[in-house]
Amino acid sequence: MQNDSILLAQLNPIVADVEYNYNKAVEYLNRAKKLGIKLVVYPELFLLGYPPIDIIERYPLIVHENIKFLHKFAKQCTEISALIGFCEFNNSATGKKYFNSVAFIKDGKIEKIMRKSLLPVYSEFSEGRYFESAPFVSSQRIIQFGGYRPGVVICEENWNDDAFFDKPMYAFDPVKILVDEQKPDFLINLSASPTRAKKEQLLNNMLSNCAKKYSMPLLYVNQTGSTDCITFCGASRVYDANGELIARAKSFEEDFFVVTPYKSRQNKLEPLPKGVEKTLNSQKEFSLDYDWDMERTFLTIVSAIKDYFEKNGFKRAVLGLSGGLDSSCCAYLLACALGSNNVLGVSMPSKITSLQSKSDAKQLALNLGINFFEIPIKDMTDAASLTFNTLFDKIDFCWSDYRYKAPLTFDNIQARSRAMILWGISNEFSYTIPIATSDKSELYMGYATINGDMSGGFAPICDVTKTKLFALARWMNDNAPIRNAIPNAVLLKPPGAELAINPETGKPLLAEEALMPYEFLDEVIWRLENLQQSAEQMLNEKFLYEKSHNVTFEEKKSWLEKFACRVQFAQFKWSIMPPGPIVDSRSIVRAEYIQPITSRLKF
Amino acid sequence: MQNDSILLAQLNPIVADVEYNYNKAVEYLNRAKKLGIKLVVYPELFLLGYPPIDIIERYPLIVHENIKFLHKFAKQCTEISALIGFCEFNNSATGKKYFNSVAFIKDGKIEKIMRKSLLPVYSEFSEGRYFESAPFVSSQRIIQFGGYRPGVVICEENWNDDAFFDKPMYAFDPVKILVDEQKPDFLINLSASPTRAKKEQLLNNMLSNCAKKYSMPLLYVNQTGSTDCITFCGASRVYDANGELIARAKSFEEDFFVVTPYKSRQNKLEPLPKGVEKTLNSQKEFSLDYDWDMERTFLTIVSAIKDYFEKNGFKRAVLGLSGGLDSSCCAYLLACALGSNNVLGVSMPSKITSLQSKSDAKQLALNLGINFFEIPIKDMTDAASLTFNTLFDKIDFCWSDYRYKAPLTFDNIQARSRAMILWGISNEFSYTIPIATSDKSELYMGYATINGDMSGGFAPICDVTKTKLFALARWMNDNAPIRNAIPNAVLLKPPGAELAINPETGKPLLAEEALMPYEFLDEVIWRLENLQQSAEQMLNEKFLYEKSHNVTFEEKKSWLEKFACRVQFAQFKWSIMPPGPIVDSRSIVRAEYIQPITSRLKF
Repeated sequence: MQNDSILLAQLNPIVADVEYNYNKAVEYLNRAKKLGIKLVVYPELFLLGYPPIDIIERYPLIVHENIKFLHKFAKQCTEISALIGFCEFNNSATGKKYFNSVAFIKDGKIEKIMRKSLLPVYSEFSEGRYFESAPFVSSQRIIQFGGYRPGVVICEENWNDDAFFDKPMYAFDPVKILVDEQKPDFLINLSASPTRAKKEQLLNNMLSNCAKKYSMPLLYVNQTGSTDCITFCGASRVYDANGELIARAKSFEEDFFVVTPYKSRQNKLEPLPKGVEKTLNSQKEFSLDYDWDMERTFLTIVSAIKDYFEKNGFKRAVLGLSGGLDSSCCAYLLACALGSNNVLGVSMPSKITSLQSKSDAKQLALNLGINFFEIPIKDMTDAASLTFNTLFDKIDFCWSDYRYKAPLTFDNIQARSRAMILWGISNEFSYTIPIATSDKSELYMGYATINGDMSGGFAPICDVTKTKLFALARWMNDNAPIRNAIPNAVLLKPPGAELAINPETGKPLLAEEALMPYEFLDEVIWRLENLQQSAEQMLNEKFLYEKSHNVTFEEKKSWLEKFACRVQFAQFKWSIMPPGPIVDSRSIVRAEYIQPITSRLKF
Repeated sequence: MQNDSILLAQLNPIVADVEYNYNKAVEYLNRAKKLGIKLVVYPELFLLGYPPIDIIERYPLIVHENIKFLHKFAKQCTEISALIGFCEFNNSATGKKYFNSVAFIKDGKIEKIMRKSLLPVYSEFSEGRYFESAPFVSSQRIIQFGGYRPGVVICEENWNDDAFFDKPMYAFDPVKILVDEQKPDFLINLSASPTRAKKEQLLNNMLSNCAKKYSMPLLYVNQTGSTDCITFCGASRVYDANGELIARAKSFEEDFFVVTPYKSRQNKLEPLPKGVEKTLNSQKEFSLDYDWDMERTFLTIVSAIKDYFEKNGFKRAVLGLSGGLDSSCCAYLLACALGSNNVLGVSMPSKITSLQSKSDAKQLALNLGINFFEIPIKDMTDAASLTFNTLFDKIDFCWSDYRYKAPLTFDNIQARSRAMILWGISNEFSYTIPIATSDKSELYMGYATINGDMSGGFAPICDVTKTKLFALARWMNDNAPIRNAIPNAVLLKPPGAELAINPETGKPLLAEEALMPYEFLDEVIWRLENLQQSAEQMLNEKFLYEKSHNVTFEEKKSWLEKFACRVQFAQFKWSIMPPGPIVDSRSIVRAEYIQPITSRLKF
């Protein structure tokens, strides 16, 4: 091993489990020592785990513990140096309680402490809640390592170059100050940077641009694994002084990743999820081509499920299998994340459920090798209907004026009986939680039953739109560990909840009959999230769907009005959705999107 | 009316309903004009409504609209001036998209724009997500009014006096800069300041101290009404140059409040909620004396329910009445907030429900004058049990190792059948939502059933501990509009969910048997929230409960361990709780407390 080799310790911490994180850090340190490596770089805030959010405010003992373990860790650093993220108390006279800091440890001692100066407060980031933004002191950012003088920046500090970003978010650029004032030999960035659709291109361009601009190598170390809704993709990397990518660690898994910043040929270049590199320009138009994001989407959701279960002590998942797309995809993802034996699919047919749906559900389970049982819900829905009708007749004495002519009550009895069965299983069998199978398109429409299909401990596909989910199903059939698990019939049938009969067709009501074409709906969502367009603007834009279908102005207007009306009402439902992984470039997942339910959305 | 009279327009806006807010503003403006008043002061961000959070990021049309209505409003300001909060686009080269601004309007024109410099990002505040913190420019803060030169500050800018606060949160004090540089005649503060237990004393001392310190009157205008979890208490006010309170508007309602800052005798002093003024020192010890906070607690919850319903278009509430404390208090609060006719209580006895519980539920409903029906759930629970048992026998083929010996399945079938009935009513009768009746003590313990009593559209008492709820019930009986509505038996019986029989007693299991004494539990919660004590620290503290009961060290330790274990698991349940009002000095309500579920709480 070269004397100028550096270990980028791409690890998966557990928030607030300091001892666990410490043990991981020591394990990599010892492996590095054995190889004669002289410097180990860990991710941002590694000892505490990212993101801690309000835990450190309510449970300060955890912060005391992370300080204790930092000192313990320092003692292990003989013959080797380390850069490691931790949470520091802010003892100065003003400001928030803590700093998001990095310790440089050398010869068994903490030699320097670096405090993060730019704290993200937007989207899934809320560092400003509990961390104080520190003044940027460039002299504190220089370390000594094997004759070199690298400079250190922490995550967001790399993201404010006014030549790269149209509108930088902060008033100063720490990297520029560091380079101007200290002329380091190369740069090291400690990050905890979540995956998002289309973020790879931005990250790559930004880091490459930085290395090239200052003509110095740039090492970037990221964490991996998931915390609730947020997934970190790893893919730690090195750019040389020309901005060329010369090393990249694995994506979506831990990696003991050794690099030599000045010797490009000795470095490994692990592949990214397929397609992620291809789309180097921002998407300007809505498209049904999701190929470029399939593997990343799959890995993100699998990581999120896996870590939500493992880190929280859950072992098994149970879900209703309707024979439809949403539950089939969820079952697939769960089988990949938890192992088929730990997944139980239950088919719970009602009188509206078709034979085809029942056989599709069974076939899917067989293909995936998951546990599967069928149980009719007729007794439960009959009992509920009887009880309801007795009660409703009584309520009519006081509220008859308010009784709906065509209520959704029976539709929902079915969905809620199913959820009741799943939660019953969760009560009867240990460490088992039900899965909410709602997708993003239907959540936007509020087309999901409270305490029904919306209910569960985790919602794996809540940030995947229906058209993208169709693409994902096909992609999984072709590429995921279990091939062709989703029956063709599931991919071909039009989505529908099978909760009610459409009086016009005499067949189960289809979702597109109740809502609008999914292709149109998903473009509305895309335009709202990515372009922040209003209904009036959208009315004047040509939708992809309109290229292949005749849509009258009135029809388009009515769909947009339906969207506006339903999305306003859906806020209330989103507030009681379980957590699920952020996948898309923008999402309505609780960790990212915070808004009052009580409001008038003007769209 | 004097020429130096000022209207403090204490109003209740709806977030993002700009036209509604504008109309309210104009109504007060016109009334003020008729009285010859020369200046109207509105709350912070009034045209947009507070707090908008991410709405302005996703729906920029709303911000455009607030600018349009600001200009429309300016044209109405002839013969009168106004200070009004609005959301401004940040057109500079760096920073977040918007400013939280105040316009000074005179002679039909916007004369000055003032941009908020200190943005709160903690607890229920998240202004840093979308607003840019502006440099404080004191010359922009001086207005001309009737020969005076008042200076203007915006909410948080008043909260950073380093002589008043032990550790100010920000690096500079805008009020000091304003006074030093501009020597204004008096100060005007535009706020949107939520109510909290014990905040009145802090607010009063802080504002009084400020007026006295600078020897100038201070006018403070606050908004009122609720947005989801956050309630604004109004109580706008004026302090004279000696720091004496010389005027105060009504609490928890809109008020057309005219003040003359230099003529103390002409001002009105409306009462605060009873007791709120009394506790001028911070509470140092846990106490079961809640008298000082009863009226404020009642008004906060009633305001929260009223506005959640009215602003969101809900009209009626339905809840299960068990004859226990939680549902009785919820019914009481709902009746006061919505009117008895709009509340429906349903008694849903199972085989475990006692005759006493049934008759208490009925008596309560009768006393409150709410609609009431009884419906047994036996048919539903029988059908569910039968279905479950058939299914569980099948699941035993694969998961028999994981089957609990003493599962809670049947207990929860009861709670879930009840919630299913309530949601059914919500589906059948228009604009009707079920109410989640969980209290704060039980939520901390995770002692609530998902899709059962935890389920609903709103959770009125989720921030009220059990011992405080007993006090509130008694207080309402003595003081609320409907006297003595809660039957004495409800106040005397020990709490219990009546979902299971305690094998040791042969009677329904009591909550304190399953958990620990509520008096002890509530002190643990109080110490955790207010002192951030760890279990080890608590073990060495003398609890109030220990003064009247013998508690062994082992017993105390086991209760603290039980607390730690249950609170860790409860995180997962909190994530799917509906919104409810923040009442206490600290809370676990979603708007205030954000933390990853996936974590290890060290306590």
